[in-house]
Amino acid sequence: MKKNTKVNAAILIIGNEILSGRTQDTNTSTLATWLNSNGVKVEEVRVIPDDEKTIIDTLNVLRKSRNYVFTTGGIGPTHDDITAVSVSKAFGLKYEIHKEAFKILESYYKSGEFNEGRQKMAWMPQNANLILNPTSGAPGFNIKNVFCLPGVPSIMKSMLGGLKHKIVGGNPILSHTISLRTVESEIAASLTEVQDKNKDVEIGSYPFFHAGKLGVSIVLRSEAQSKIDSCNSEILKFVNEKKIEIVDR
Amino acid sequence: MKKNTKVNAAILIIGNEILSGRTQDTNTSTLATWLNSNGVKVEEVRVIPDDEKTIIDTLNVLRKSRNYVFTTGGIGPTHDDITAVSVSKAFGLKYEIHKEAFKILESYYKSGEFNEGRQKMAWMPQNANLILNPTSGAPGFNIKNVFCLPGVPSIMKSMLGGLKHKIVGGNPILSHTISLRTVESEIAASLTEVQDKNKDVEIGSYPFFHAGKLGVSIVLRSEAQSKIDSCNSEILKFVNEKKIEIVDR
Repeated sequence: MKKNTKVNAAILIIGNEILSGRTQDTNTSTLATWLNSNGVKVEEVRVIPDDEKTIIDTLNVLRKSRNYVFTTGGIGPTHDDITAVSVSKAFGLKYEIHKEAFKILESYYKSGEFNEGRQKMAWMPQNANLILNPTSGAPGFNIKNVFCLPGVPSIMKSMLGGLKHKIVGGNPILSHTISLRTVESEIAASLTEVQDKNKDVEIGSYPFFHAGKLGVSIVLRSEAQSKIDSCNSEILKFVNEKKIEIVDR
Repeated sequence: MKKNTKVNAAILIIGNEILSGRTQDTNTSTLATWLNSNGVKVEEVRVIPDDEKTIIDTLNVLRKSRNYVFTTGGIGPTHDDITAVSVSKAFGLKYEIHKEAFKILESYYKSGEFNEGRQKMAWMPQNANLILNPTSGAPGFNIKNVFCLPGVPSIMKSMLGGLKHKIVGGNPILSHTISLRTVESEIAASLTEVQDKNKDVEIGSYPFFHAGKLGVSIVLRSEAQSKIDSCNSEILKFVNEKKIEIVDR
């Protein structure tokens, strides 16, 4: 089996609206699911305000410590959209009109509607690679290992398809879930034994409350299906012995 | 008017299940909303894996740079619940059985059901202050400026009421939202003018798509109602001039 190159990423969510609690972030889970399916493990997420110095400092830490950084938010037309200028400064690149982005935006809007606010969305770090936007015209951009996407979840999601060939991942991380009608403390000792014998499998235990009943989902994650399978057998063994019901979820 | 002491906080979400994309985090928005209403501004959120060294290192950065740190996740009975031992190490404190927590758990469970897994939830940093749990018995804990809460959203939320008197916030951050039937680029220039004249008010612009129609919510945030009001008037002025419809959202 090919060794997983352990390709990792950080997600950087930029936006006061998340920090104030006003907006529920969903981009993290969309991006994390997509990255995992492409063999990229998300090691860290940070949510930071629309503040230039904070964006520059955080981005410079993350881009040097992770294989990839994905940012969301702050690339629209209004005064609080400062991601592109901040990324330019983080890389020491000129912040200028991207000719191709300008053309895309110019042809997207009706004649006379390509106003100053909309033109702002063509300003990017020098020589940025565009990330095309099939939903609303305005492209995202990529500089080296940093990919900048918009904050609106539906638009962000629609741009991931065009990114797949730009990401080189390791083996996809496989997962298997076993949901049980039990509580965590009933299985904690047995699960610890299984984890101790299977260091290469990440075993997570997550209580749930569904349709009025308590349960626990055990999630097995590994690059190797065979390791997940053998771990699964060991878990089913103690589940059987303890007469715990397995449930669909 | 009392000067806001600019009390700030970081939220630290601990859990592989968020980073894998399997679980949608909602604790950030619950905590952020609650903290804001208590005059505490959330400056940063980090999501990190269930990894001891990462928890220790991250917590030590955050607790020294913010007034408060709130963690969620990793305080249950299973092998992947390592927040309490990691927090102990971060503070250089013994990790030991907390007598009061032990008693609470002992009386919560039926005789004979207080097994090893459940007893694990009484292990905490030495001299931790308990955070009572009205939902499921097992308490959270507080050491200095760090508050450790469980990851299950309904349980976490139920514990906030008991925390209010432990938090000393500044003036609550007030907010006002104006929702418009427009697109961001139509109002970007006018909004920039208003922001430039009102540096003390944080003005956010958030596009939305609701009931099949596009719109923009403008969110004004400040400690001073009077500043929000005057900012609001300036916005309504250009909204009126541009004949933009105001909508409920």
